[in-house]
Amino acid sequence: MSHKILVAQGGGPTAVINQSLVGVALEARRFSSISHVYGALHGVRGIVNDDLVDLGQETVANLEAVAATPASALGSTRDKPDLKYCQEIFKVLKAHEIDTFFYIGGNDSSDTVRIVADEAKKGGHALRAIHIPKTIDNDLVGFDHTPGFPSAARFVAQAFAGANLDNAALPGVYCAVIMGRHAGFLTAASALARKYPGDGPHLIYVPERTFVVEKFLADVKDVYEQHGRCIIAASEGIHDEKGEAIITKLVGKAEKDAHGNVQLSGTGALADLLCEEVKNKLGIKRVRGDTFGYLQRSFVGCVSKVDQREAREVGEKAVQYAVGGVQNGSVAIKRVGDYAVDYPLIPLETVAGKTRVMEDNLISEQANDVTDAFLAYAQPLIGADVPEVAKLRAAKVAKAGVLLGDGT
Amino acid sequence: MSHKILVAQGGGPTAVINQSLVGVALEARRFSSISHVYGALHGVRGIVNDDLVDLGQETVANLEAVAATPASALGSTRDKPDLKYCQEIFKVLKAHEIDTFFYIGGNDSSDTVRIVADEAKKGGHALRAIHIPKTIDNDLVGFDHTPGFPSAARFVAQAFAGANLDNAALPGVYCAVIMGRHAGFLTAASALARKYPGDGPHLIYVPERTFVVEKFLADVKDVYEQHGRCIIAASEGIHDEKGEAIITKLVGKAEKDAHGNVQLSGTGALADLLCEEVKNKLGIKRVRGDTFGYLQRSFVGCVSKVDQREAREVGEKAVQYAVGGVQNGSVAIKRVGDYAVDYPLIPLETVAGKTRVMEDNLISEQANDVTDAFLAYAQPLIGADVPEVAKLRAAKVAKAGVLLGDGT
Repeated sequence: MSHKILVAQGGGPTAVINQSLVGVALEARRFSSISHVYGALHGVRGIVNDDLVDLGQETVANLEAVAATPASALGSTRDKPDLKYCQEIFKVLKAHEIDTFFYIGGNDSSDTVRIVADEAKKGGHALRAIHIPKTIDNDLVGFDHTPGFPSAARFVAQAFAGANLDNAALPGVYCAVIMGRHAGFLTAASALARKYPGDGPHLIYVPERTFVVEKFLADVKDVYEQHGRCIIAASEGIHDEKGEAIITKLVGKAEKDAHGNVQLSGTGALADLLCEEVKNKLGIKRVRGDTFGYLQRSFVGCVSKVDQREAREVGEKAVQYAVGGVQNGSVAIKRVGDYAVDYPLIPLETVAGKTRVMEDNLISEQANDVTDAFLAYAQPLIGADVPEVAKLRAAKVAKAGVLLGDGT
Repeated sequence: MSHKILVAQGGGPTAVINQSLVGVALEARRFSSISHVYGALHGVRGIVNDDLVDLGQETVANLEAVAATPASALGSTRDKPDLKYCQEIFKVLKAHEIDTFFYIGGNDSSDTVRIVADEAKKGGHALRAIHIPKTIDNDLVGFDHTPGFPSAARFVAQAFAGANLDNAALPGVYCAVIMGRHAGFLTAASALARKYPGDGPHLIYVPERTFVVEKFLADVKDVYEQHGRCIIAASEGIHDEKGEAIITKLVGKAEKDAHGNVQLSGTGALADLLCEEVKNKLGIKRVRGDTFGYLQRSFVGCVSKVDQREAREVGEKAVQYAVGGVQNGSVAIKRVGDYAVDYPLIPLETVAGKTRVMEDNLISEQANDVTDAFLAYAQPLIGADVPEVAKLRAAKVAKAGVLLGDGT
């Protein structure tokens, strides 16, 4: 029997999501049972609009160039199908005689695959539906980690390594806000930037713990008194004891996205708020805030080789599972060595619409840092070729003794 | 006669400022007439505090590792000496028998060198004082370009190349704010991100032109109607017709730095303001703002090889000029081929305290883009090895004709 397969990309882009797309496209070419590989433009929206492209007409050279390019080459969407939307999907799939659907995405996209698979079963449509993971948030249940996270983590680590040096040169307080609504993995990755004793980030705040402004200020004061400077990594999703996002305390009326989530990204408001607190309450003059924003998921030229390889492999494995007769599931990443992985297929229900957060043993007791367990977990993911930094050994010259206070 | 030389770093760090430092330290080792190479910690402040380190005790391996590390390895300062400060400087230099001073920095630092040289002459102190250039702003008069700019420009280009792809995947308006108080060179470098027709940034606003909010909104509307999305690069220094910074219109009371300048960096307020304008006035829903902040000057792992080489060479040339008997000056970069440079020594007065801005032929008539002349000027600086991006050629699949509106 001959198969037509369709692949699409959903949710926020990553540095390696196109590796998975190309993994599907190239792996499919190995199988004579696969007659066509189509791509849908802008995720499920491209299906209901019958906006498909023929990946069989792409050259290998261009596919490999696309694989090395960040962001979703097919375009993405935040659409989440309901029953009516699913019926439109089936209408188009049936008309094109497509019997296999691969959706590359995160929690919401895996839930889309689950809904589509469920509705197909109920409606008697013959459809294989497989979820291929990606998300910089690293928040998929059932996964050791997710494609996209290692490259974003590497960006965050390289950014903090530089920010630490910059701040050492011109001391003050520096606070950077990192993506991550519920899961602090990416913010935690800032810890990978440390090399020498005293290096920042000195404080790391993740959404898995309640953020208490007074505690934060006391932490900053302590670090500043000890080092004469302080570097802070804060997740955009930090919240108070009632679960209210710290950012909404500032902006009041916050924008909500298509899934009803408050907009946390694409604004520098949280970093500015935290800086204002430090300036006003601690009286420190040089206080600077950055929000890494879209750079952390899209910057061209910062990618983990481990991530590239794994993102390619989950695409390849999805095709192999489908050809092997699997009806549906999610291609997971399981760590089987230090460092080695395997790609078991797990049920869609394990992943769909659920959110993994950082395990307790990864967060320090004081809730303002990560543990060594986190470093051991994350270090292999960002690759062995992270650029190194160095400091002068700085042998002091004996003072000439001409200054007041030198005892002269 | 035996010389003791002192090197220091001033102003904002760059990705390659340590190349210049190491250029001085290693070049000095060639000359038996140079007995010691000292470094001052945190610029001129390290001199008045008699806080010196002996660079003669550094190993070549560590110096090379430091050269490849962003930010100022000796530490930096925003201090600008007056007469009293200069007298403290001379006291310490004399006590250590230092007769040569190299200061690596931008406008303010070159002015410091001029003041120190002037006061030394007036006071009869035998002191050679040479300015070694660095600034990501590219705003030194008498220079083709300045060390530090090419690497920052490369960061901006790679960031926009990624942001363009991200925005194409999830369309909307994206506005990123770039460093540059008076000179728009770094913001203009965003144009180097374009590859395919329709690629962003679609609009570029530099401080050399008056920023008119209504014109900006009309520009965004035009682009959005044409492309269904719009990417904007705006300099932090954009201002209205009276010269008032657009950011101060928002924040009212703005912080001023040690030189009396309003704080433009280390806050996301300008990007947020521009996004609010677009949302409210144009009714576009998905509008996101980023502020590249300190990443553009400190990110580890994004450097132009051209910049690395030239930053090293200006340090080497400074030592050669001093050994050759020069009293003072600034080591300039002159373009002598396409692409090749030379390093003439120019008078401190040419550089000190002055600000170069973008020449008129580099900015488009509509004041919302750069010209081809700018691209020809900037392209060789960022290096030939910038990571490439690629798009699918996306051969359309014929519509199945099952949708409403397909004529079925």
